[in-house]
Amino acid sequence: MFFEICDNEVDIVIAALKPDITTFLEGWRPIFSRFHLIIIKDPDLEADLEIPTGFDHQLYTKSDMEKIIGSSPINFSGHSCRYFGYLISTKKYIISIDDDCLPVKDVRGNLINAIEQHMTNLKTPATPFYFNTLYDPFQKGSDFVRGYPFSLRCGVECVISSGLWLNFADYDAPTQAVKPHERNSRYVDAVITVPLRAMMPVSGINFGFRREVVGPALLPALHLKTAGKQRWEALEDIWSGLCAKVVCDHLKFGVKTGLPYVWRNASGNAWESLKRDWEGVKLMEEIVPFFQSVKLPKTMIIAEDCVLQIATLVRERLGPVDQVFMLAADAMEEWVKLWKTFESERN
Amino acid sequence: MFFEICDNEVDIVIAALKPDITTFLEGWRPIFSRFHLIIIKDPDLEADLEIPTGFDHQLYTKSDMEKIIGSSPINFSGHSCRYFGYLISTKKYIISIDDDCLPVKDVRGNLINAIEQHMTNLKTPATPFYFNTLYDPFQKGSDFVRGYPFSLRCGVECVISSGLWLNFADYDAPTQAVKPHERNSRYVDAVITVPLRAMMPVSGINFGFRREVVGPALLPALHLKTAGKQRWEALEDIWSGLCAKVVCDHLKFGVKTGLPYVWRNASGNAWESLKRDWEGVKLMEEIVPFFQSVKLPKTMIIAEDCVLQIATLVRERLGPVDQVFMLAADAMEEWVKLWKTFESERN
Repeated sequence: MFFEICDNEVDIVIAALKPDITTFLEGWRPIFSRFHLIIIKDPDLEADLEIPTGFDHQLYTKSDMEKIIGSSPINFSGHSCRYFGYLISTKKYIISIDDDCLPVKDVRGNLINAIEQHMTNLKTPATPFYFNTLYDPFQKGSDFVRGYPFSLRCGVECVISSGLWLNFADYDAPTQAVKPHERNSRYVDAVITVPLRAMMPVSGINFGFRREVVGPALLPALHLKTAGKQRWEALEDIWSGLCAKVVCDHLKFGVKTGLPYVWRNASGNAWESLKRDWEGVKLMEEIVPFFQSVKLPKTMIIAEDCVLQIATLVRERLGPVDQVFMLAADAMEEWVKLWKTFESERN
Repeated sequence: MFFEICDNEVDIVIAALKPDITTFLEGWRPIFSRFHLIIIKDPDLEADLEIPTGFDHQLYTKSDMEKIIGSSPINFSGHSCRYFGYLISTKKYIISIDDDCLPVKDVRGNLINAIEQHMTNLKTPATPFYFNTLYDPFQKGSDFVRGYPFSLRCGVECVISSGLWLNFADYDAPTQAVKPHERNSRYVDAVITVPLRAMMPVSGINFGFRREVVGPALLPALHLKTAGKQRWEALEDIWSGLCAKVVCDHLKFGVKTGLPYVWRNASGNAWESLKRDWEGVKLMEEIVPFFQSVKLPKTMIIAEDCVLQIATLVRERLGPVDQVFMLAADAMEEWVKLWKTFESERN
């Protein structure tokens, strides 16, 4: 299915964690050049960013952040700097691609357009209420399988498109340490709606969403005390994804995963990460049952209210387990406050 | 992952709906020849079956059925004849492949071994309690995604492996009539555990399962009054699959879908089917909410009891809607009775 993408309905948000993003931007030039880019420089990065010419972009650094939001208790360090971009965007859709990813090529050597695929995922309905064994029925050459109720075939609006990585797979530090040489070479040509009530982790590295609808639920709230700068050490996007999934399930919006792939380069030493106390393993055992148990009142009909309610539940149920959850609840409330401020400034 | 398959733990059940199954069996010879085949001749088929030599098989015809089970009210006509094979098998696993399917070839022209893939699906755990965005973590080259709780990584036993079709996709009559020339050419190289509480339709055409555990829930119960012999007119395996999924969810067993593909040849005229009153469209609107709402008591720990309880609920909640559901409930009870008789004879 082909969709006309209006250039002015999409912001591409890039979290710049290293000073030289030339290879990254040149690799993506044929795909990115028609869109507006919001580049957020990791506030911990000191060297100046090198940005090649010819891109319609805005760059935000630590001092811009301070000017715009003052001294927020929200931590925008490292991978979390992308969330600053989510906050200041005014577009209908945001697509987030990390600076260590390149486009995937098809068998003929042509670049696969990840932005177009994210937009197709977002602009076609999702089908969370019944599982379609033939994958995304709105993809070209597919449809609903025999036995799919016709009343459910219109689906619901898809507000999250979570893409995957080729080469370097999205493993945690222990798995990465056990399989340092494993590379993901399986290109699974499918998009799937994640069913209602099925919880799943997302990654912010190759990710698209409908900003106004679900943006309030995509937030940098959970930061492990011992986390370094490696992606596998962070739980911030896992937490954010679970929060967003609960909100989408409640508000009857859809979440898709699968295509597009991006090519992610290997980096870092997982074994080094494991030498730190890797809290993520322990905390996930608390986090998943919590999100599986969250029920939101029917009166809540926007993501902002849902997030505030989840923050209250986090404080009640997870707070006693670990202080990090209290901080997460605070950050969730602060995020909604910031979001509302930006929204009212836009209107 | 490679598993040693013991030849004597698998029965391949073949529903023979046409007299000449030579092309079918010759196509599958390299894959089937080491296994025992149970061939069930559609009781409505009058001509003798032609079965090429060299296969370890048992053939069951209408008169065998009558000898073995007498005059059962269960309808084993057409596609439903496969269920007779499920009943008389004594093996740990059953794989059902229809006589209009052939093995798929890989890019080098080698046959893909669908039996091996079904067995890999069944012999590796399923993960219904949390969604793994990297597909089946037990497939070679895959693992659990970052953020997957370690306590859930052992998974649960997989008891159903539901395969797909290339060429001719599993559409219903209306979709098939709208897209008579559409062919499924997308080979999605993935296996997925269908999450807990997500309902999905299955097809018995390319299907594997753990016989003793879930066999009682795979039953020929729902027969549309106006259904002909085309696969797209039947709801019997959709009903059976929903029943099995509810039972698997309750008993904490897993269901996988995806690989293996088989090549299914086009046949029939969907437009002809639509000239009959195609009840399936209407009934699915009742069937899906029903199965989504079924809750089974914790005291029920085997599939037989679960099926009897579902039959009671069918009679109560769906019976008033259409007489066909009363007949389905009767057939479910009759099936469990037959299953128990066969089980006690085996022991």
